[in-house]
Amino acid sequence: MRTVSFPELYAMFAETLNLVEDRLESLLEGDHPLFFEGTVHLLRAGGKRLRPLLALIAARVGESFARERGGGAYSGEAPEERERRLVHLGVSLELVHMASLVHDDVVDAADLRRGRATVRARWGEGAAVLLGDMLFAKALEEISSIGDRLAAEVLARAVYEMSVGEIVQLGDLYRPVTCREYLRRIRRKTALLIAASARLGARLGGAPPDVERRIGRFGYYAGMAFQLTDDLLDFVGTEEELGKPRGHDLAQGHVTLPTLLALRDPVLGPEALAALRTRRTAELLPDLVARMHERGIFEESRAFVARYVAKGEETLVPLRDRDGVAYLEGILHFIARRKY
Amino acid sequence: MRTVSFPELYAMFAETLNLVEDRLESLLEGDHPLFFEGTVHLLRAGGKRLRPLLALIAARVGESFARERGGGAYSGEAPEERERRLVHLGVSLELVHMASLVHDDVVDAADLRRGRATVRARWGEGAAVLLGDMLFAKALEEISSIGDRLAAEVLARAVYEMSVGEIVQLGDLYRPVTCREYLRRIRRKTALLIAASARLGARLGGAPPDVERRIGRFGYYAGMAFQLTDDLLDFVGTEEELGKPRGHDLAQGHVTLPTLLALRDPVLGPEALAALRTRRTAELLPDLVARMHERGIFEESRAFVARYVAKGEETLVPLRDRDGVAYLEGILHFIARRKY
Repeated sequence: MRTVSFPELYAMFAETLNLVEDRLESLLEGDHPLFFEGTVHLLRAGGKRLRPLLALIAARVGESFARERGGGAYSGEAPEERERRLVHLGVSLELVHMASLVHDDVVDAADLRRGRATVRARWGEGAAVLLGDMLFAKALEEISSIGDRLAAEVLARAVYEMSVGEIVQLGDLYRPVTCREYLRRIRRKTALLIAASARLGARLGGAPPDVERRIGRFGYYAGMAFQLTDDLLDFVGTEEELGKPRGHDLAQGHVTLPTLLALRDPVLGPEALAALRTRRTAELLPDLVARMHERGIFEESRAFVARYVAKGEETLVPLRDRDGVAYLEGILHFIARRKY
Repeated sequence: MRTVSFPELYAMFAETLNLVEDRLESLLEGDHPLFFEGTVHLLRAGGKRLRPLLALIAARVGESFARERGGGAYSGEAPEERERRLVHLGVSLELVHMASLVHDDVVDAADLRRGRATVRARWGEGAAVLLGDMLFAKALEEISSIGDRLAAEVLARAVYEMSVGEIVQLGDLYRPVTCREYLRRIRRKTALLIAASARLGARLGGAPPDVERRIGRFGYYAGMAFQLTDDLLDFVGTEEELGKPRGHDLAQGHVTLPTLLALRDPVLGPEALAALRTRRTAELLPDLVARMHERGIFEESRAFVARYVAKGEETLVPLRDRDGVAYLEGILHFIARRKY
């Protein structure tokens, strides 16, 4: 069976996604001009809205349980009320994502993001710190307003883990990390927020607790596949697709999967280690990337992605006949095959 | 009647405050070493724990209602359960306060806080941004775990307002703001979090909605008095008490109440304005402060504090015979009369 494409997924959930979009715009038009000015380009840069979309798909699966006896906390709820909760969830997920981008640009001292001046570059470090705080706080206020016992706690925990992941990454700069360390880091940095998106979508859709947890686990595998693909694309994408020079991560000292596979490679290892140790990494990069191609490092990286995709698919097996599950598969395949 | 002193207040609530302290320490001993290393000096620097203390006092007043018919949501609750909620509240308030200090030091590019190297100075800007994020997120997770419908929303809103207040302050640097602008700014920067502390304490203690709101309003007046006093002490405190040079705010371009009163003064106005406009403020400071003394600027500032104290007291009138109200008065007077 052909899996659903990403544009098809969008079209399918366009109505609620548009409500998310409208509410995001209206929240950001808040009382301080910088709040809007600093965020509107992030909002309109054509982000994929991956987290809200995943939450909506997960909610669809949850709903198929809510229509039955033994559904979750939100079974039997009026459709408008369910939609309202899902819009708040989608908005808060996107706000957290935006906040993390604004703060990441401070941490990385980045002047450009996708070809545009960052908040930090345009208004300074202090304003970027505070704007990120405003976005985080707004996200938590938005999710708290749902009134779900767990939602705010799960989201706050994901934000905490995300910040820990980032701080670990900061300590790992130019360090030849192990595969285990790397996977643990991207789990915290990326996968747990995506897992929370899926889990909370399922919960608010009306899934019973075991299904909520299962879909959360699916989200975790999808999140790992997402970051693994991101880290691979940094080496093999085109500059146009990436919006930044190829090998940018390694040039900045970030050791991701392809680099640590190169470090483990008997032939490439010493060369890769030297490139890190000297910190003249950027200079040595083009040559190193060419040799990584030769040694099959990027196929090996793709195999990692495939492993997480397989785990994600496996998680869905018991849900196979449920409404919406084909869309979860669709988003998983988009995540693994995307080129940008 | 003599009002209760601050040490007496502490002693009175020592048992629960110690639980707050223990839980703070154990949370900060979290999984990343920087989380503890970066926060432990903030924790042990002998902060006043003003917000948790205020929340506990407000809860005491709330409890006196919970023992009656028509109490709030938490009447009839077991004492251990009430204490658990209050500990979570106290911890989350203190974590928010700590997070804001860590981020403020990034915004102000400060190397020292109370004589110690800031997180920013010791581990860099990026680590300080992320550590502050971890603290904010932990605070929101902690308050969400209470499971109160409003608590997380009110706290997240206070964090949002605090960040807006800070960003407004950033835009107001060296600007001759009006009194109205100044009051609005400190309301957001400081008073709303203190108001939230009082309100949520009352709520979790068991106050009915109207009392919860009244005590929140009291907290707002107390918070305004707190920041007004802070801004006054910056001019009239001793360097030893302040842990920073006198007039530090103005030297950094922060226009607070004494400065804006000087700007309004027919004699001092032109001189004060020139000091701001040239941005040679630090240089001109000792002379300006001496002239502000002569012109009675600091007495005028004290009159503002007194006005908010009077409003706070007035708010308490309908609660006069309630258990704990004398302690609210005690904390209000401490706030207004403190020297550090």
